[in-house]
Amino acid sequence: MTKAARTKPRLEDKLAGLRMAVFDFDGVFTDNRVLVLQDGREGVLCSRADGLGLEKLRRLGLKLLVLSTEPNPVVGARCRKLKLPCVQGCRTKAETLKKVAAKNRIPLSDVLYMGNDINDLECLDIVGLPVCVADAHARVRARSSYQTQAPGGYGAVREICDKIVEARTAMTRKRTP
Amino acid sequence: MTKAARTKPRLEDKLAGLRMAVFDFDGVFTDNRVLVLQDGREGVLCSRADGLGLEKLRRLGLKLLVLSTEPNPVVGARCRKLKLPCVQGCRTKAETLKKVAAKNRIPLSDVLYMGNDINDLECLDIVGLPVCVADAHARVRARSSYQTQAPGGYGAVREICDKIVEARTAMTRKRTP
Amino acid sequence: MTKAARTKPRLEDKLAGLRMAVFDFDGVFTDNRVLVLQDGREGVLCSRADGLGLEKLRRLGLKLLVLSTEPNPVVGARCRKLKLPCVQGCRTKAETLKKVAAKNRIPLSDVLYMGNDINDLECLDIVGLPVCVADAHARVRARSSYQTQAPGGYGAVREICDKIVEARTAMTRKRTP
Amino acid sequence: MTKAARTKPRLEDKLAGLRMAVFDFDGVFTDNRVLVLQDGREGVLCSRADGLGLEKLRRLGLKLLVLSTEPNPVVGARCRKLKLPCVQGCRTKAETLKKVAAKNRIPLSDVLYMGNDINDLECLDIVGLPVCVADAHARVRARSSYQTQAPGGYGAVREICDKIVEARTAMTRKRTP
Repeated sequence: MTKAARTKPRLEDKLAGLRMAVFDFDGVFTDNRVLVLQDGREGVLCSRADGLGLEKLRRLGLKLLVLSTEPNPVVGARCRKLKLPCVQGCRTKAETLKKVAAKNRIPLSDVLYMGNDINDLECLDIVGLPVCVADAHARVRARSSYQTQAPGGYGAVREICDKIVEARTAMTRKRTP
Repeated sequence: MTKAARTKPRLEDKLAGLRMAVFDFDGVFTDNRVLVLQDGREGVLCSRADGLGLEKLRRLGLKLLVLSTEPNPVVGARCRKLKLPCVQGCRTKAETLKKVAAKNRIPLSDVLYMGNDINDLECLDIVGLPVCVADAHARVRARSSYQTQAPGGYGAVREICDKIVEARTAMTRKRTP
Repeated sequence: MTKAARTKPRLEDKLAGLRMAVFDFDGVFTDNRVLVLQDGREGVLCSRADGLGLEKLRRLGLKLLVLSTEPNPVVGARCRKLKLPCVQGCRTKAETLKKVAAKNRIPLSDVLYMGNDINDLECLDIVGLPVCVADAHARVRARSSYQTQAPGGYGAVREICDKIVEARTAMTRKRTP
Repeated sequence: MTKAARTKPRLEDKLAGLRMAVFDFDGVFTDNRVLVLQDGREGVLCSRADGLGLEKLRRLGLKLLVLSTEPNPVVGARCRKLKLPCVQGCRTKAETLKKVAAKNRIPLSDVLYMGNDINDLECLDIVGLPVCVADAHARVRARSSYQTQAPGGYGAVREICDKIVEARTAMTRKRTP
């Protein structure tokens, strides 16, 4: 193995070694659109596919978290259904991410962050595996190590979950020949 | 006719001989998305085209059934409108499918199952005609004998209904020259 | 002018001579999808573009009508907003169309009908100008004289309104040189 | 610099010099579709991306305004969330635009108007920078100086905001070497 290969871990190794996965909400769990009703109440369109993926990560023991600047209770409603801890109306996402990781004694190098817009840049810059959706803002795509094939709200979360499970399974097989 | 053609019935024969059609709900009747409102209530987007197709199957005497793991009452609401019997919040879909078929004295070889995600694999594996939507999970597509051209929620159910009716009509014509 | 051109009027002449325009609702004013909420209430997605087109037809003096087999009150809600007379839960669309035309002393040859599914075939067959949306059922497309470029719910109604206005304007110019 | 280049300012100069941005609502903030519920209540689908862009324009000191002929309160609901002043149910958009500009002592040449349908033509014709969405009516596209790559409701507002910020930033850099 060359020195470069030793020091710069491959995507698969990064995925297999993850201990925590943090997600932005709008544009990641949704297609970044919001249904506005005439009384001001809001709704969002999410993918049923995401649930099965998150369930698998939970069984692998990964710490999960949703961080959203959006104050509308719709974020919390979806997270409750998916049994995801969630900090919403969060103005300092990167600070919150660091605190939760430290409290759980997880180094930021073992954290995945998945976002779609420029208010995710700070979080993407501090984690070991910055990920974005297919239809993320150009500046976000430029700063992510991995981009899902699915756009936000159409199974992007499920796709990254499946990738983590595959990488973990492949690693386990290698270790137990 | 060769021996192979005799033992492995063609798709048209399978379709014409069906006595029961079982459907997953999310991703089949819907585009696998869920509208989440801020109070946690849910909604789904279905196709008006499906109703006319299911009505035709009913007239042909096929037993119809919807099996869903999703606990939200939105599944039941749609099934009531379509006059479809439905078991929802169903954790053991394959077991339920077997019981209903047995109770109706229908062999599993005369049953169609239509799904879209990995929690449909067990059902797809035990029926005579496993079918999936155009945008099904890769593992589901690999295990299905037929894949609709329409994605879930955009007339996929109607498409398979039309195919069954066509196959039955063609068979009837052949028998009554 | 050849005899054929005299006896078979061109599309533009048909459009310019229309006195009544009749529309199916689902799949024409909508993308044929229905939002189903968990309490069974329904919603549909329509195009804001349609209103401006219908307003123009009204000013030209055309009789307008919506015929729908769907019993849900959502059809009436949209028609009230567009100020369109509407018969819903209508099982005998062709009979109703004939009665309304006769009552208004409009020959069926001067009527346009716009539909998308097989329960529109009877109406399409009796009017002078049968029209369908881009994403209509194959059997409906085969029986229509004109097919809009827009699919249902994405401005298909507006598109046909614009075409009628253009044809009428062109005809008026020809007559008043 | 040639005379033509001096007298006809480039798009970037126009963008950098803007003092007011006026938006139509339906088809610009939305995909021009309306959700109609069975009790007649309405909803629209907007993009979460727009908020971050409008916030930037506000910080640059631009006067913002939404003008809509649509009477439904859904327009006001979305504008309140985005903290945008809004005149809805507005039958004389061009007159209102002129009045607001005059009251704020902003020449119409420093105003951007963004629309999508033929009831926007009058406004587009009187402002310095007429802009439309990718899926605007053909007659609107023909009268606009700039057309966004995004269709309405999918970040078209954000796209024009980003362009204004870029142009302003580039101009500031040129002036302070």
